Amino acid sequence: MSSSIVPEYEVANEQYAAAFNKGDLALPPSRHVAVLACMDARLDPAQLLGIELGSAHVIRNAGGRAADALRSVIISQQLLGTREIVIVHHTDCGMLTFSDLDLKAKVRNDLGQDVDHIAFLPFSDLEQSVRDDIAFLKKSPLVLDVPITGYIYDVKSGKISKVDA
Amino acid sequence: MSSSIVPEYEVANEQYAAAFNKGDLALPPSRHVAVLACMDARLDPAQLLGIELGSAHVIRNAGGRAADALRSVIISQQLLGTREIVIVHHTDCGMLTFSDLDLKAKVRNDLGQDVDHIAFLPFSDLEQSVRDDIAFLKKSPLVLDVPITGYIYDVKSGKISKVDA
Repeated sequence: MSSSIVPEYEVANEQYAAAFNKGDLALPPSRHVAVLACMDARLDPAQLLGIELGSAHVIRNAGGRAADALRSVIISQQLLGTREIVIVHHTDCGMLTFSDLDLKAKVRNDLGQDVDHIAFLPFSDLEQSVRDDIAFLKKSPLVLDVPITGYIYDVKSGKISKVDA
Repeated sequence: MSSSIVPEYEVANEQYAAAFNKGDLALPPSRHVAVLACMDARLDPAQLLGIELGSAHVIRNAGGRAADALRSVIISQQLLGTREIVIVHHTDCGMLTFSDLDLKAKVRNDLGQDVDHIAFLPFSDLEQSVRDDIAFLKKSPLVLDVPITGYIYDVKSGKISKVDA
């Protein structure tokens, strides 16, 4: 097993805090946007979109799936005033590599647990996954009727491509 | 209503992609860690912890709550080999400002929808929220027995403080 990364994070944070000069930012995102992206290690939403500190909520989960972000989107809109959503999925996503049944079987075999209550939300078509998540949010009566834009990020080139909804 | 931020994101990404030279990173996080943080606009997990591109999953939701990250944590561990978890909650969190009943009432009043099926997971004690999320993951039979470290990030100073579990 590799050693814990925690000592490195703590040293990095000392340097970050020593140079920190953004202590007066407001709680509500200044640009009224919520970004929903995959948790993938090769994506840095703030860097790849140029998100300024304090300007946007950033919600991330496996695949950047909307169904699993609903609680956060409701809080973002109802309590903190965001009025736009930007979705970022990406090439070579892990969610393209398994089926819901595969993972349920693996958890049953390896952990001895039934996870019939969890939908793992994998997908087989990347563009369609973005369209599906836009449609999910558009259809949900719990989500305000706000502009939603979806992108695919290319982990090889660093480029985003807009997905036509 | 403010104008969409999308044109700015697209310009920023052109600049990002033009300088991008990390196109050969592997899908599994190289440091085998999953970071779970709040979606708050004033947090940039990669910057404040010094996370290198390709090294860590970053899961973010309202409050950085573990119960709402379970699907992603299972995928991170079972399919992509992470073996450490780092939790980051923060001062002045929106989750300290409301109760579950408050938000359910607001959604009922403003959107005409019952959301009894969604637990919004607010908290009234910041340190305890980190301890609760560590305990949640430690107790879950769906989560491997891995090192879990919890921090509170101070949005005024940029500093993280470790929470004793």
